[in-house]
Amino acid sequence: MKIIVQKYGGSSVADTNKIKNVAQRISKKIEEGNKLVVVVSAMGKTTDNLIKLAKEITNNLVPRELDMLLTTGEQVAASLLALALNDIGIKCKSLNAFQAGIVTTSDFTQARIKNLKSKKIKYLFKENNAIIITGFQGITEEGEITTLGRGGSDTSAVAVAAALNAKCEIYSDVAGIYSTDPRIHPTAKKLKFITYDEMLEMSSLGAKVLHSRSVEIAKKFGITIYCGSTFSDEEGSYVMKKNIEQPVVSGLSVMDNQTQVTLSNLPLDYNLVQQIFEKVAKEGLNVDMISVISNTGLNISFTIIEEKKSHIAKTLSNILKDMKGFNIDYHSGYSKISIVGIGMKSSSGVASKYFKALEKIPIKLVTTSEIKISCLVEEKFKDKAVKALIETFEL
Amino acid sequence: MKIIVQKYGGSSVADTNKIKNVAQRISKKIEEGNKLVVVVSAMGKTTDNLIKLAKEITNNLVPRELDMLLTTGEQVAASLLALALNDIGIKCKSLNAFQAGIVTTSDFTQARIKNLKSKKIKYLFKENNAIIITGFQGITEEGEITTLGRGGSDTSAVAVAAALNAKCEIYSDVAGIYSTDPRIHPTAKKLKFITYDEMLEMSSLGAKVLHSRSVEIAKKFGITIYCGSTFSDEEGSYVMKKNIEQPVVSGLSVMDNQTQVTLSNLPLDYNLVQQIFEKVAKEGLNVDMISVISNTGLNISFTIIEEKKSHIAKTLSNILKDMKGFNIDYHSGYSKISIVGIGMKSSSGVASKYFKALEKIPIKLVTTSEIKISCLVEEKFKDKAVKALIETFEL
Repeated sequence: MKIIVQKYGGSSVADTNKIKNVAQRISKKIEEGNKLVVVVSAMGKTTDNLIKLAKEITNNLVPRELDMLLTTGEQVAASLLALALNDIGIKCKSLNAFQAGIVTTSDFTQARIKNLKSKKIKYLFKENNAIIITGFQGITEEGEITTLGRGGSDTSAVAVAAALNAKCEIYSDVAGIYSTDPRIHPTAKKLKFITYDEMLEMSSLGAKVLHSRSVEIAKKFGITIYCGSTFSDEEGSYVMKKNIEQPVVSGLSVMDNQTQVTLSNLPLDYNLVQQIFEKVAKEGLNVDMISVISNTGLNISFTIIEEKKSHIAKTLSNILKDMKGFNIDYHSGYSKISIVGIGMKSSSGVASKYFKALEKIPIKLVTTSEIKISCLVEEKFKDKAVKALIETFEL
Repeated sequence: MKIIVQKYGGSSVADTNKIKNVAQRISKKIEEGNKLVVVVSAMGKTTDNLIKLAKEITNNLVPRELDMLLTTGEQVAASLLALALNDIGIKCKSLNAFQAGIVTTSDFTQARIKNLKSKKIKYLFKENNAIIITGFQGITEEGEITTLGRGGSDTSAVAVAAALNAKCEIYSDVAGIYSTDPRIHPTAKKLKFITYDEMLEMSSLGAKVLHSRSVEIAKKFGITIYCGSTFSDEEGSYVMKKNIEQPVVSGLSVMDNQTQVTLSNLPLDYNLVQQIFEKVAKEGLNVDMISVISNTGLNISFTIIEEKKSHIAKTLSNILKDMKGFNIDYHSGYSKISIVGIGMKSSSGVASKYFKALEKIPIKLVTTSEIKISCLVEEKFKDKAVKALIETFEL
């Protein structure tokens, strides 16, 4: 018995005709002798519409209740897909997260999968050829319903594939992974292969192809992820351990709505750095592009998404309330532009080509890792910078 | 700690403003020192809309998957109500049927509650003043999701009240129980009290006030049900053991779309009667007004709702395929009109008054119980018959 795990995103099941189309695709794979686990997202804009409904009641969206609300979306999609499969003679059953045994931490709205009880799926395969599982959601050991964060259905799929040691195929309206967003840059190249690490850098940079946690799990368990299109048979991309074709720089991604926070002239106390980032983390604030420079005093700069600006400002003024003589600056309206490539590790001169490409653009902040270089620029310079990088690195 | 179980129907939570109104009503009861379990139905037309969506895919609505689909409706309503309560400072949690431990049989779309694990509810009351529970649904011991049939949220509420030995209040858009449908007969009288048995007869006759299984459970555990309006403080009705005011006939109800099935000249074999009704029951077909008359041959007549006509016809021709010389007739377009009253037990002359009232109307079939008389008439005579009975029995 060969098991394939497939995941279909919200746009792939956006209406009942699209659900029937997905059923046909599943049927084809079953005819080829496979058994399928199919992980589905909520139909089209369902999740957004449910959030809108909740906001008609209150802006205080208690995370536990929000998760109770949102998880209904995938259950609707899963049961409708099961009905569509039954209709064309495929024996199948739909399962929600508690039935499938997807156990998570209890961090509502951003839970992490702890383990997956694959016994039930294996048992159901005795009499069924397809098992439909609600993506994006889990259940805690105490029976509380959780969600894995936006895009979490990818993670559900990879976790199921890991538990069953199966192939994992992620279908969406884009046929594969591109060097940069093809909707914005029509010349973007499709990547046939990309490594886990490259994909992780790209996901965490805001490339919307895969939920980053799904890539972490795939890397941990060595699951190859195929990313393809629901609507065509165009060849997609493989996320795997080794990149068979290895360009130096394989991708570029852009994140808008960045605020740069700069603390200057703090006393030279490294304990303070640790304290600041510990308290910031405790507040659930994700900061990025952290840069710490010390000379006569301590200077710290980092980025945060704009909507968290007042939260971080409150947090920092609380931490530093007894301190004097330093400055805090907040600058919004920035974009973060990053290039990623496993080949950067072993290729020299990438940084110099990068800075050469951006020579006419004022760069506010730069951070680098072994396989990534990111810079922060004002949004008005974004297009110019992206164009220059795409040309320089042939993306 | 005084616990009250309240149930709000679909029209009571039809939109977010109505949900906020329900939250205010709950808040008021909590201020009076009560703890509340609130059972909710799906918002407005949600269930119908989900069925419509499923029918866009197929007319073969596999019951298990239909239940997976429909149970999402109550979960949406429950979580939204929890958000509304949180918003006004009420500590609460929403639970779906598996979390609340509402264990049912595995008869999908018409499951019966077997037991209810009240431990979790009691535990949650330590830190919460309201627990919101999804009505209409349950979970089997194997973890399958079930529904209790249309109107099943009443049964959920009464079962919870029985498990907690609490008061049970059912709120809808009608303030109480009427002697007949007030939307059709504006002179209908509101009943202050009605016994379980009277209510059972009325429910099973199609009076839409309460799900009949809810009344059975209330009777078994001696739970008084209060039926009131969500939208006014008008005094409602009590369903209880004794009818404090005891009229002879307390209610009238009408069921349309009835088909009369008549088998005549069957061989005089009582085993056959048993066989017929056993096989009919196995097909999940509910028949009513069964009449068996034997003289030279066996004559059987009964009713069934019109939409099941082809199903019953197929079933009967299968059972009787080796038999000859008998007739089967099907007549549709009939209405069943019933009067109910616990007082009929001890009051003579009700039947004769009944037939006197209907003397000018051709009656197709009559069945009686200790507290009920039902007759079947062509729909064109329905209004005349109802009017005559309302006048005769002052309903």
